Amino acid sequence: MPEAILDDISHRRYNPLRGSWLLVSPHRTKRPWQGAQETPSKITLPEYDPACYLCPGNKRAQGDSNPKYVEPFVFVNDYSAVKESQAEYTPPEQNAQETDSWDGKIDLSSLLLRATPVTGRCYVLTFSPHHNLTLADLTPQQILPVVQMWTQIYSLHLSPSNPLSKIPIPTPLSLPITPPKEQLRWMQIFENKGAAMGCSNPHPHGQIWTTTGLPEEPAEELIQLQKYRKENNGRSLLADYVKVEMQKEERIVFQNNAFLVVCPWWATWPFEVMIISKEHRRALVDFTEQEQLDFAEAVAEVTRRYDNLFETSFPYSSGIHQAPLEGTEEEIESSHFHMHFYPPLLRSATVRKFLVGYELMAEPQRDITPEQAAKRLREDCGGVLYRKNL
Amino acid sequence: MPEAILDDISHRRYNPLRGSWLLVSPHRTKRPWQGAQETPSKITLPEYDPACYLCPGNKRAQGDSNPKYVEPFVFVNDYSAVKESQAEYTPPEQNAQETDSWDGKIDLSSLLLRATPVTGRCYVLTFSPHHNLTLADLTPQQILPVVQMWTQIYSLHLSPSNPLSKIPIPTPLSLPITPPKEQLRWMQIFENKGAAMGCSNPHPHGQIWTTTGLPEEPAEELIQLQKYRKENNGRSLLADYVKVEMQKEERIVFQNNAFLVVCPWWATWPFEVMIISKEHRRALVDFTEQEQLDFAEAVAEVTRRYDNLFETSFPYSSGIHQAPLEGTEEEIESSHFHMHFYPPLLRSATVRKFLVGYELMAEPQRDITPEQAAKRLREDCGGVLYRKNL
Ligand SMILES: O=P(O)(O)O[C@H]1O[C@H](CO)[C@@H](O)[C@H](O)[C@H]1O
Ligand SMILES: O=P(O)(O)O[C@H]1O[C@H](CO)[C@@H](O)[C@H](O)[C@H]1O
Repeated sequence: MPEAILDDISHRRYNPLRGSWLLVSPHRTKRPWQGAQETPSKITLPEYDPACYLCPGNKRAQGDSNPKYVEPFVFVNDYSAVKESQAEYTPPEQNAQETDSWDGKIDLSSLLLRATPVTGRCYVLTFSPHHNLTLADLTPQQILPVVQMWTQIYSLHLSPSNPLSKIPIPTPLSLPITPPKEQLRWMQIFENKGAAMGCSNPHPHGQIWTTTGLPEEPAEELIQLQKYRKENNGRSLLADYVKVEMQKEERIVFQNNAFLVVCPWWATWPFEVMIISKEHRRALVDFTEQEQLDFAEAVAEVTRRYDNLFETSFPYSSGIHQAPLEGTEEEIESSHFHMHFYPPLLRSATVRKFLVGYELMAEPQRDITPEQAAKRLREDCGGVLYRKNL
Repeated sequence: MPEAILDDISHRRYNPLRGSWLLVSPHRTKRPWQGAQETPSKITLPEYDPACYLCPGNKRAQGDSNPKYVEPFVFVNDYSAVKESQAEYTPPEQNAQETDSWDGKIDLSSLLLRATPVTGRCYVLTFSPHHNLTLADLTPQQILPVVQMWTQIYSLHLSPSNPLSKIPIPTPLSLPITPPKEQLRWMQIFENKGAAMGCSNPHPHGQIWTTTGLPEEPAEELIQLQKYRKENNGRSLLADYVKVEMQKEERIVFQNNAFLVVCPWWATWPFEVMIISKEHRRALVDFTEQEQLDFAEAVAEVTRRYDNLFETSFPYSSGIHQAPLEGTEEEIESSHFHMHFYPPLLRSATVRKFLVGYELMAEPQRDITPEQAAKRLREDCGGVLYRKNL
């Protein structure tokens, strides 16, 4: 295996999903750490917290009250980053008229100060009524309702022109939300977990932001996925990638019938993983009921193994990439369902990796190899949740 | 001004230097913050710390001793992310031979598991012999030697084929480092300041990583700069941008004869700024002695204003983008010297902005507008360093 040498030398790896490179410096973990220490989150929280704006029955910041919900509960974010209606803004047209910054041929400010309005809707989705649980504490059966709700919300926002909108959803739920007023382009389902990842409330929850525009990351992935499909007889980049990883067996963390969990070859974060559907699935609505459960199991495995790694409630940001709500046939057919987990911890519950100076100014850089990370998550972190034994 | 409305509505702004968009949600700062609090760094450090591996005369982690330096001091990083020599690695050729992952036409693993070796050299550069100072504490005259040293180190690494290598440097210094053994492509000068930005030692210092490859961020900027130059009669994108900002006067923080300090139209970090040379300068070696001092003054102004903003030692990552060490004529001529500052604090010395779930999975998102940030840095933060009055 020519790659064995990559354990010892500095090298760059290519991320075919983003079309970008990152720097890997495997020998670098030897350096002593005298920097910031994370504060691990408390693991003894009450099951119900009267001051939590997400607990059932409680009042939220802008006055609404939560119902006494027992299943996952969704509501429109009280502090949404995008809204359904706002004042009109029409970007000035390029070359429209002579201004101060007219250079004789073009108006420089319309060229260099470009803006475009965005509308949409943001949701908060609690994973459980219990304040003191996390996805790592839940069984696949208990995560299943979250998957079903994600599926349902995604389906509700699909453009009528999107072929995915015709697919009947297993187990439709009655949602306390209305269809969007205007057609949206993208839905970003994500979770920030832990104070280290900017989460301000430990109550288990994720967010969903939908927008009229296609954001940068999915836009880049869509370009790469379409390019690969075109150049490789209509095959899916991620289905091919699953095939390679299943043959190599070096970066696999867990798998079941429908999903592979790997530390990707191009992982940036120390213990980054991806959940990928083994077969080509464009989006949540493509899953059978069994696949929904398999996906819930994959999420349970990732989050429990994470917590077991450093025996702490492991912080991360996670997010689902799938077909756009509205898009060309090419975009929709090239999409391949996957979920990213970006966790910051590197060496222990208190020592994280900082993606800072070099990473921001030049290129992402990692210290341990994805193979080393996968081995630990695969071999040392299975079994029951460490907290169960305390 | 049609842009005034952008103070109130969610919109995307275009970053012409990276060719990417970001989301601006100005109304969002109203949300209450219950999340992580940063620990402001102590401001009472000793002038000399016997345990600091950067103080003059002290022993470093791998046994070397620092001289009793009085000016900025540079040495090769004891834990370099890239090294000058390492085991050879030749990436397997695509299509080379049939393997397990052969799909009949190509070997999928050579297509999807791509790596390339990187070599180079990493330096640490102290800004002052005094353990308890930061750039914000230094006068432009005291920062000047740092600028001179950056210039000298950059010049030492230039490819003989690079026309910039012919430029005589004002005030050459005798450096304790040797020329690189192989030709390098890129030099990244950067600083991580403060524990919040992964800095593990408060002794004022920055880093310089040089590599055989061109990293992602400068590669993207170079593409955009060349494109602009081609489409606009050989003009510089950043020279045009300076022109627009000087006419608009909305995002300027500070300026002198040679440099403009702005919160860029496309700023991602709450109080992000850029120092840009007003005229087209390709790199540090293009500066006159007066311009070196003007640049030192711009750095002093940024760092002092930052500290004054929340009356704390303001964390940030900063980095210089300039011409590559080796490159095509087009690349070198399109380069326009600038320095980025990415500071995480948002509301106070303890409340930062987290670029996490949505930002990592979808697109960078900011809360206050760059115009609001610039106004505060321009109008409220000049004057003496707040610590001077304590
Ligand atoms: O080299 P240092 O200061 O030990 O390390 C710091 O800067 C590096 C370059 O940005 C990062 O990779 C590290 O995560 C960070 O802690
Ligand atoms: O929406 P929240 O949870 O208040 O805020 C968190 O997630 C957002 C989306 O990733 C980020 O923009 C915020 O910086 C972060 O603190």
